Amino acid sequence: MGSKNCLMEKISNNLVLAADVGGTNTRMAVVNENGDILTLLKKATHCKNGRDEMIEFIISLAVETIEKSNLSKEEICGMGIGFPGPLNAETGTIFNPPNLDGWDCVPLRGMLEKELGVPVAIENDANAAALGEWWKGAGSGVNSLFCITLGTGVGGGIILDGNIWHGASSIAGEIGHTTVIRDGIKCTCGNIGCLEAYACSGGILRRVNDALLKGRNNDSLQPLTDLKQVSQVIKQGNETVLNVIKETGVILGIAVANIANLLNPEMIVLFGGVTNLGENLVVSLKEEVKRRAFKKATESLRIELSQLGDNSGILGAAKNIFSKL
Amino acid sequence: MGSKNCLMEKISNNLVLAADVGGTNTRMAVVNENGDILTLLKKATHCKNGRDEMIEFIISLAVETIEKSNLSKEEICGMGIGFPGPLNAETGTIFNPPNLDGWDCVPLRGMLEKELGVPVAIENDANAAALGEWWKGAGSGVNSLFCITLGTGVGGGIILDGNIWHGASSIAGEIGHTTVIRDGIKCTCGNIGCLEAYACSGGILRRVNDALLKGRNNDSLQPLTDLKQVSQVIKQGNETVLNVIKETGVILGIAVANIANLLNPEMIVLFGGVTNLGENLVVSLKEEVKRRAFKKATESLRIELSQLGDNSGILGAAKNIFSKL
Repeated sequence: MGSKNCLMEKISNNLVLAADVGGTNTRMAVVNENGDILTLLKKATHCKNGRDEMIEFIISLAVETIEKSNLSKEEICGMGIGFPGPLNAETGTIFNPPNLDGWDCVPLRGMLEKELGVPVAIENDANAAALGEWWKGAGSGVNSLFCITLGTGVGGGIILDGNIWHGASSIAGEIGHTTVIRDGIKCTCGNIGCLEAYACSGGILRRVNDALLKGRNNDSLQPLTDLKQVSQVIKQGNETVLNVIKETGVILGIAVANIANLLNPEMIVLFGGVTNLGENLVVSLKEEVKRRAFKKATESLRIELSQLGDNSGILGAAKNIFSKL
Repeated sequence: MGSKNCLMEKISNNLVLAADVGGTNTRMAVVNENGDILTLLKKATHCKNGRDEMIEFIISLAVETIEKSNLSKEEICGMGIGFPGPLNAETGTIFNPPNLDGWDCVPLRGMLEKELGVPVAIENDANAAALGEWWKGAGSGVNSLFCITLGTGVGGGIILDGNIWHGASSIAGEIGHTTVIRDGIKCTCGNIGCLEAYACSGGILRRVNDALLKGRNNDSLQPLTDLKQVSQVIKQGNETVLNVIKETGVILGIAVANIANLLNPEMIVLFGGVTNLGENLVVSLKEEVKRRAFKKATESLRIELSQLGDNSGILGAAKNIFSKL
């Protein structure tokens, strides 16, 4: 089939806007029912001046994305959004995301529906990523999936029987704030020993730098400031840093083994910048899961890296609104 | 309404056999669609001579229960069973329950359907207890519930949107084998630091006796052999034993907080003999959950003791077969 026919086919499907809104960047796309991304814009999120500026920014980026697609507004059937939680996905109300100022019980869905004139569905960003991976990524075709987001924070989204499991108060999936070390290090949530304190990018860097400071032969090494540097010094043969990353894999493995025995999903998807640490992290993670979880749980469990990367949130947001149209 | 009318009403409903089969005792009842138990027999399980004897025992107890109800076989529409796992609830195949000899991939459902001539539904005992509590017990009316069974072992059953969540290989709910203490004590499953190693009746007794042995002023106290004795010595003011039970509550609290943040259920139901330790256990459990779980998860979370006690498995087994008829 030629490329023109292909394009015609894509456009003949229903189309939606899909957005992955973050505190730093926002990605907005036009997506069809097959999960094809037809247009994609990425911009720094305008949010310095508070929530009104941010809502205006989302609306104008939506309009711009439609225009860039050479579509009219009438050709868009709805809009799906992945947004930082906590939020109520049913009502589309944003509570108070830790990294955004001035958001406190904002009925974002209603506001956007009024402005854009189409149905809007809002989902927490970790759930959107999980749904995207389930729809078109690593988890395509599975019945149940737990997606762990490993980045600035550690979050998670649960897909059961093909649907997001939200829980009683819309916070299900918070694997980052389950205890892995009872008397462990302090977490930003106020608790101690949470997975996030060890396995988010900042937590890993702190632990790497602490280990380097304690090591005798590395006095000359400056503190590392990002995970790329961590990978580099491991490549250069630094055992101290390698051991911290392996240990991070073990700690993640405890949390994943707990998920395996508790929820017994078909698949765990690992997602986010921390996964760029690669095999040094993932091998020890998988070993620990095998060591701790029931054989019957691990035999049927696939542990995979995200296939969609930055697009998982957009595709999840798109799937979410398609499922409601 | 007089008692005779009441009885007539009960009998006019569809009736099923419901069994809670254990390695020690089996309880068998006739139950109607309202969850009323019309007849209930309890017998020591005949299983010394292996699985064939045990299957014959289940069949003869079923027949006896129908007879004791003054019913004919034709008035029974089906049979629900709670049975020790692991098992496949969909096919009704029993794998290899640790406390039963000679069971290895036994298609129990098919065998019983052939003998009894009615549809049979088999569910793992922890799931049956969870379903019973959801249907007619502490969790009546809630949307999601996690039932923790605290007895010889520690297990669990998950109800989501009113249905049992089985997972990909029928082992979901195994809270007893999630890690609570990373480098903790050895568990019978081969792993270390599992909740069960600390919070099952045998684990608690071992920890109590270890603490007494270490204590200076209790040299005269003989090792305790059951949890009733544990409650007694606490009543007599033994601080050492009280502290072990409070510590058990804290460890249980870590596991419950993890469930709260991960699954965000509406209710946790605590079930089984260990809950007879009462407030000494439950107060520290609840405090630890509050300390570790998100406020948004705990605000909407009720932690309750089983309301049905020994009948939860029977009522869950009954509900399970009713939902399939």
